[in-house]
Amino acid sequence: MVAEIISIGDELLIGQIVNTNASFIAAELNLAGVVVKRITTIGDTRDEILSALNQASGYADIVVITGGLGPTNDDITKNTLCEYFDSHLVFDQKSFDNIFRLFGNRGIEISVTNRMQAELPHNCKALRNPLGTAPGMWFEKKGVHYFSLPGVPFEMKKMLLDEIIPELQKLGVIKPIVHKTLLTIGIGESALADRIRDWEEQLPANIKLAYLPEPGIVKLRLSSYNSETANPEKQIEAEIGKLKELIPELIFGSNKDTLQEVVGKLLKAAKSSVSTAESCTGGYIAHLITSVPGSSVYYKGSVVAYDNAVKTGSLGVAEELIIRHGAVSEEVVKAMAQGVKQVLKTDYAIATSGVAGPDGGTAEKPVGTTWVAIATPEKVFTQKFLLGDDRERNIRRAALLALNQLRKELIK
Amino acid sequence: MVAEIISIGDELLIGQIVNTNASFIAAELNLAGVVVKRITTIGDTRDEILSALNQASGYADIVVITGGLGPTNDDITKNTLCEYFDSHLVFDQKSFDNIFRLFGNRGIEISVTNRMQAELPHNCKALRNPLGTAPGMWFEKKGVHYFSLPGVPFEMKKMLLDEIIPELQKLGVIKPIVHKTLLTIGIGESALADRIRDWEEQLPANIKLAYLPEPGIVKLRLSSYNSETANPEKQIEAEIGKLKELIPELIFGSNKDTLQEVVGKLLKAAKSSVSTAESCTGGYIAHLITSVPGSSVYYKGSVVAYDNAVKTGSLGVAEELIIRHGAVSEEVVKAMAQGVKQVLKTDYAIATSGVAGPDGGTAEKPVGTTWVAIATPEKVFTQKFLLGDDRERNIRRAALLALNQLRKELIK
Repeated sequence: MVAEIISIGDELLIGQIVNTNASFIAAELNLAGVVVKRITTIGDTRDEILSALNQASGYADIVVITGGLGPTNDDITKNTLCEYFDSHLVFDQKSFDNIFRLFGNRGIEISVTNRMQAELPHNCKALRNPLGTAPGMWFEKKGVHYFSLPGVPFEMKKMLLDEIIPELQKLGVIKPIVHKTLLTIGIGESALADRIRDWEEQLPANIKLAYLPEPGIVKLRLSSYNSETANPEKQIEAEIGKLKELIPELIFGSNKDTLQEVVGKLLKAAKSSVSTAESCTGGYIAHLITSVPGSSVYYKGSVVAYDNAVKTGSLGVAEELIIRHGAVSEEVVKAMAQGVKQVLKTDYAIATSGVAGPDGGTAEKPVGTTWVAIATPEKVFTQKFLLGDDRERNIRRAALLALNQLRKELIK
Repeated sequence: MVAEIISIGDELLIGQIVNTNASFIAAELNLAGVVVKRITTIGDTRDEILSALNQASGYADIVVITGGLGPTNDDITKNTLCEYFDSHLVFDQKSFDNIFRLFGNRGIEISVTNRMQAELPHNCKALRNPLGTAPGMWFEKKGVHYFSLPGVPFEMKKMLLDEIIPELQKLGVIKPIVHKTLLTIGIGESALADRIRDWEEQLPANIKLAYLPEPGIVKLRLSSYNSETANPEKQIEAEIGKLKELIPELIFGSNKDTLQEVVGKLLKAAKSSVSTAESCTGGYIAHLITSVPGSSVYYKGSVVAYDNAVKTGSLGVAEELIIRHGAVSEEVVKAMAQGVKQVLKTDYAIATSGVAGPDGGTAEKPVGTTWVAIATPEKVFTQKFLLGDDRERNIRRAALLALNQLRKELIK
């Protein structure tokens, strides 16, 4: 089964809002075993709608249209649908009852425009919209199913999940495509590709691999497209098992995991606490850790030691160390980790010191030079990273790499 | 001028990522006076790319393609572009120099796949990608301009803003439209609209006003669409002058300003320093401040006091205060601001304490309750905010509102 998503809305074409509807629908259709071949975003005009419908009908089994059904603009969309499906508008009592339930029940007068929302093409099946006044429409033409849904995200989502997908499943669209995404850190996309080439080449033909890079992280998505495989989940897990043997230290999680969640779970499991002492990351590690609900169980706090006086005053770093080695040095970052661990009384500590840029680089310590130290109950260890020259990315990458150092220690 | 945006990527079609690239490009083209007629999202296959190009060439003057240029998948896209533009790949030394600058300079070996990224169709103009290894491509065919850009958002954005739009303006392909955006904080969209209604109604017909709300901030964009106005900049500035008289305290900057930059400039001008003591914001204020290059001049550091023991131990907050009033209270946030100002020896200090959620709320202090304190050289003052129930948004809004309290004090 192949689908097309058509998003109608001028606000999408001027970039005022991001098309989250299309990605939501695409994800849900995929889970239900439908391949989305194309997403088309158009303005609310007859010609554009007809052209998109004509195009989609050429290859799609399912067409999901969103938008263009608000009380002030549904005339174009609905009249165009009538034209395309050779229909005319008729009053739909059940849809009006829904509008009455939403408005009339609360004593709000139903306007003419709202009343007109209950007029639907005579040959569609009306789809109930429990959260809004615009009903959806389901047409069938030459074996293709067309759904027209309101553009308001929470209305559309409910209708898609509660009615359309279950109905499509009843019609036999039940061959799920199985996806699993592995999350890696500590290696770039092309180095990773080089390292896992042999594994990639031996993948069964029905499994597709996608590289999804983000700053500091490369996601690997495996998708099983073969409906005849008895157990696609098991097949994917088997391939993931091989990959985990190949690059065990690089994989930190799967699907929607975040590194800060993974580290948090490890700390919770170990009944351990952590603190941070941040120079170049400037509080970003603290922010990542505290963005996880419930992090106060294992996270005590941070000393953001931007100024050297804070490093000496609040973290007890010896001034001599800074004078002798500079703030961006193995010696200082080590002392920062030891200092914050002691001052905040935690089991573990993370410290960072680096040149985030754009200024402050030298020949010896160019922009991107970053030291990370991890203090454990027994020891302190350090790692040097050479990052890039973009400040924002350096901060993010340094924070993720520092968290990853702690993660690797916690899973030992 | 009419444009089409073509987004290439399987991750878009399975709904794994939201197409923020398309909305960014649409917004920027719109600002430049280009009408985006259609956005098409397709998979990374020859047939889909050719079909999208054929369709776009039928009506568009400008076609912007993103994605399909990563080191592991650029062969399909580039070979298809060669086919469409009747070209063949040749090695581009300048693009290779860029890859060498990004990798080789740091002693990282350049892989074969990375080296192949420097191979480009012979009849395109290579577009430099300062932040990544994939160069962009600019083709011209029958008067239509085609741009192929990497899908990594920050790489694409830089190339679009720094090179493509200015070049198209220089060539006269697009006419500059004058825009200015004012940034407001401390008021919601509809309350702001009510307050400036009279001003909005008296705007000249050629000036369009757009409300662009974001968490914590509402942007007001004024655009002059009439090229016949002798001096559109001056006309817009005159209207802005009136608005500034109407809501002086709500406007903190314009265009691409950020609140943290504005506060940083004010601190620099006052030759003053600041520190932060963060509980509910968990280091996010520190992160915002230190995301500004050169912030070390005025920013000394932060104590992220997530645990109450850190509030008493590192900030000198009396334990009795916490027991009596709770950590989320005017008394405690005041003591935190005073404490960090003293410990980190700064002129000003910001402190936050609140219930970010989703847990931790009570009847008296529901999720969203947030106290902010500002310590100045002379005094400490506080403000209570009742935010929403979304943790991420609460953290961001609390941080911005706290920074704004300091800003208002600094401009007194």
